[in-house]
Amino acid sequence: MSQKLPIVPDTYDPKTVELCSFFDAVPGFLGGNDTPRDYLERCVEIITIREPSICAFVTIDIEAARLSADQSTERYRNGEPLSMIDGMPFAVKDLFQTADFPAELNSPLLKGERHRFDSAHVYAMRKGGAVIIGKTSLPELGSGKPAVTCNPFDLDRSPGGSSSGSAAAVGAGMLPLATGSQGRGSVLRPASFCGNVAFKPTFGALHSGGLLWRSPSYSTVGIHSSNITDCWRTAYHIAQTIGGDPGYPGLFGVADVSSFKPKRLIRLDTLGWNVTERGIQTRFLNFLSKLEKEGVEIVNRTDDPKIETFEQALRTIPEFQPGLSAWEIQWPALVLRDDGREQISETLVDRFEFGERMALNEYRKMLDALDKLREKFTSLEGVADGFITLSTPTMPPIGKATGDSVFGDPSSCLEAPAWSIPVLKEEGLPLGVQLLGNKHQDYTLAQIGKWMMETFLK
Amino acid sequence: MSQKLPIVPDTYDPKTVELCSFFDAVPGFLGGNDTPRDYLERCVEIITIREPSICAFVTIDIEAARLSADQSTERYRNGEPLSMIDGMPFAVKDLFQTADFPAELNSPLLKGERHRFDSAHVYAMRKGGAVIIGKTSLPELGSGKPAVTCNPFDLDRSPGGSSSGSAAAVGAGMLPLATGSQGRGSVLRPASFCGNVAFKPTFGALHSGGLLWRSPSYSTVGIHSSNITDCWRTAYHIAQTIGGDPGYPGLFGVADVSSFKPKRLIRLDTLGWNVTERGIQTRFLNFLSKLEKEGVEIVNRTDDPKIETFEQALRTIPEFQPGLSAWEIQWPALVLRDDGREQISETLVDRFEFGERMALNEYRKMLDALDKLREKFTSLEGVADGFITLSTPTMPPIGKATGDSVFGDPSSCLEAPAWSIPVLKEEGLPLGVQLLGNKHQDYTLAQIGKWMMETFLK
Repeated sequence: MSQKLPIVPDTYDPKTVELCSFFDAVPGFLGGNDTPRDYLERCVEIITIREPSICAFVTIDIEAARLSADQSTERYRNGEPLSMIDGMPFAVKDLFQTADFPAELNSPLLKGERHRFDSAHVYAMRKGGAVIIGKTSLPELGSGKPAVTCNPFDLDRSPGGSSSGSAAAVGAGMLPLATGSQGRGSVLRPASFCGNVAFKPTFGALHSGGLLWRSPSYSTVGIHSSNITDCWRTAYHIAQTIGGDPGYPGLFGVADVSSFKPKRLIRLDTLGWNVTERGIQTRFLNFLSKLEKEGVEIVNRTDDPKIETFEQALRTIPEFQPGLSAWEIQWPALVLRDDGREQISETLVDRFEFGERMALNEYRKMLDALDKLREKFTSLEGVADGFITLSTPTMPPIGKATGDSVFGDPSSCLEAPAWSIPVLKEEGLPLGVQLLGNKHQDYTLAQIGKWMMETFLK
Repeated sequence: MSQKLPIVPDTYDPKTVELCSFFDAVPGFLGGNDTPRDYLERCVEIITIREPSICAFVTIDIEAARLSADQSTERYRNGEPLSMIDGMPFAVKDLFQTADFPAELNSPLLKGERHRFDSAHVYAMRKGGAVIIGKTSLPELGSGKPAVTCNPFDLDRSPGGSSSGSAAAVGAGMLPLATGSQGRGSVLRPASFCGNVAFKPTFGALHSGGLLWRSPSYSTVGIHSSNITDCWRTAYHIAQTIGGDPGYPGLFGVADVSSFKPKRLIRLDTLGWNVTERGIQTRFLNFLSKLEKEGVEIVNRTDDPKIETFEQALRTIPEFQPGLSAWEIQWPALVLRDDGREQISETLVDRFEFGERMALNEYRKMLDALDKLREKFTSLEGVADGFITLSTPTMPPIGKATGDSVFGDPSSCLEAPAWSIPVLKEEGLPLGVQLLGNKHQDYTLAQIGKWMMETFLK
């Protein structure tokens, strides 16, 4: 099938891959050499070529997008764009409700299910003039039967999940940006597999209203893009327009990301390192050496007992994470189970019923365990400019299985910001490095990511 | 219109009023002398008499309720009720989604709006065998144009809001229990006006999934009932079945409420006392004297500088509450405004657009102010068994206006549990005393409320 790919497997290189960025088109819109409509048509051209084999979208409406792009074109013509993302085509993970498209969550039980309101982030993006194209694939109800979507760099492999279609659409160059969500590794993992930049914000930093299936409670909106500038501008726009989750202070930072070379990074093993493929370990260790050569100090568990204590605490995640998720998803999962048990994958039903058998008191114990982990994380505030680890322990699996979320769990559990930065390759495929931070370090991490991409991909 | 009322205005007495309780019917179901179906028919009889003048319901389905009641009857016949609330008829505030009824929120823009899932608390109650009868009225979108509902004890007066229909249905003896929600005073106030027991739990203690219009973020599910036992059993059942809000430890306490005479209560003025009608002030002060006669120590701002500091802090609520609400309701309020501005009350549109004009940074300052208030509240933990104040500063207004929420704001802002206990009367109408507690004191307050009702209504 490789004849359909602009990038042939084994030739992927993060230094030369050409994805689709938006921010660098804006000067053309303002100067009159380019228009959002023309930009959209260039996206449509790639979609036409690549979507039939990749299947990133579950629904798409190019005609409606053309209408929005024309309105945006008119605004630039008048010198009055609505925001920095006016005219930017984007897609939305089908775990979010929108007014124009159904939200089916890859479940036959939700076939054709419509909603009255756009999700909060979609509302904010449209209000800024961004152009919604369609909705992207995910595994059944976020974590069941995998999506049919293929990895854009090797159609025989998985794009990861659960934000499968969003990562694949961006990785295939079909769109500059697509939104996703993460409860375990659902943003970082597919980004690593598909060569995207991805941003999983501090919990509460972006309004998650309209996220239809939230398990666990610390799930967040996430953003996939080809680059840090578009990713951050979009996040910033959402937060400024509609805020973070109600009750939360929203995303901190300024509109544009400057580059920042960190003085010190904490290297984290997490539970992931021991299950990481040897080739990936080597790539990562080489990358750490390069960072040190650039003058970045890398410290780890052997350098500071507080880091060791935290690493030990991270090992407790599997003791509470599954129960916590299972308890919390009872609503609305059990409602759906009661409606059509036989139309839900057996593994999902098992997970839902594990929650149903739990007692509130067991859940409380799991929350207590989670709190303990979070305390240990807080004790590391200020020790370094951020944390560095991998985004996935394996290369994209052959077939549809979405892979291991082990490197995603820490940022999710800790309500911490994380970025996947596509600076590595292995076996001719993309591989992401993860930057993780304490709460509200979202912007600092973006700056570090930018410095990394500028420094190592030039 | 008084000929339609079983209770003629000026004759209301909390000692003799006969509302509709459920817990005391259960032994009859178990013993075979009564059935949930017969119980339901008794409710239907009152509904038939009283609903035409009170208009508590926006939608009702007696036939479906009969079917559920028959199934419950069968379970009791087999000695296998599903829970302590099996067979209990109840209604749901139309601010919550349910699978069987539309959710119109008293807005023409949401006419006929359907949802796929029952709200979490409705799911839990049905799972325990409770029998949903219909949905109850509220002001437009929770806080606009008042509901058409009348006060059950004086049809010329308001039942309060925003849980207008739920309080009125219970106060009229049509049902033993109805659910509501509170973001400011929306549970305590109508309960006081309609002579209900009402419970506004600690934030997060009951799963609020399916609450469609949440402003501010600390809004909670609330419960209206004629008595503390049904109220608490229902809350307990919900928490044990589906939990609190995800990420929260849920409601603490045991299934049944014993009576508890408090040693010491802190009397709070809040911002409400100075705007409280003279007659109500007198009733409340008399009640405090009665408590003291029973051996309960009442302390206030003059007794303890920490209480004075907290009272001063409560005075800051109007500085941040309106902005906080307005920012947080942007989603989904602005989506609706964009869809049909002219079909929303001007005052509501103004409020929504106040939020739209705010900057994220202003919202953060309001969150900071709220945090300061919450800290001062925490400093009073352990000082007494609870706090006592009023539920409303006025009697139910003549006409439809829902009244002042000033006595509701503290429990809402503080994420604190509160009960309205219908032990007083004034002008021949009900008047509630409010018990407020520190977080997770829900059960202790229930015990104190029970003691009060037993002691002063015998």
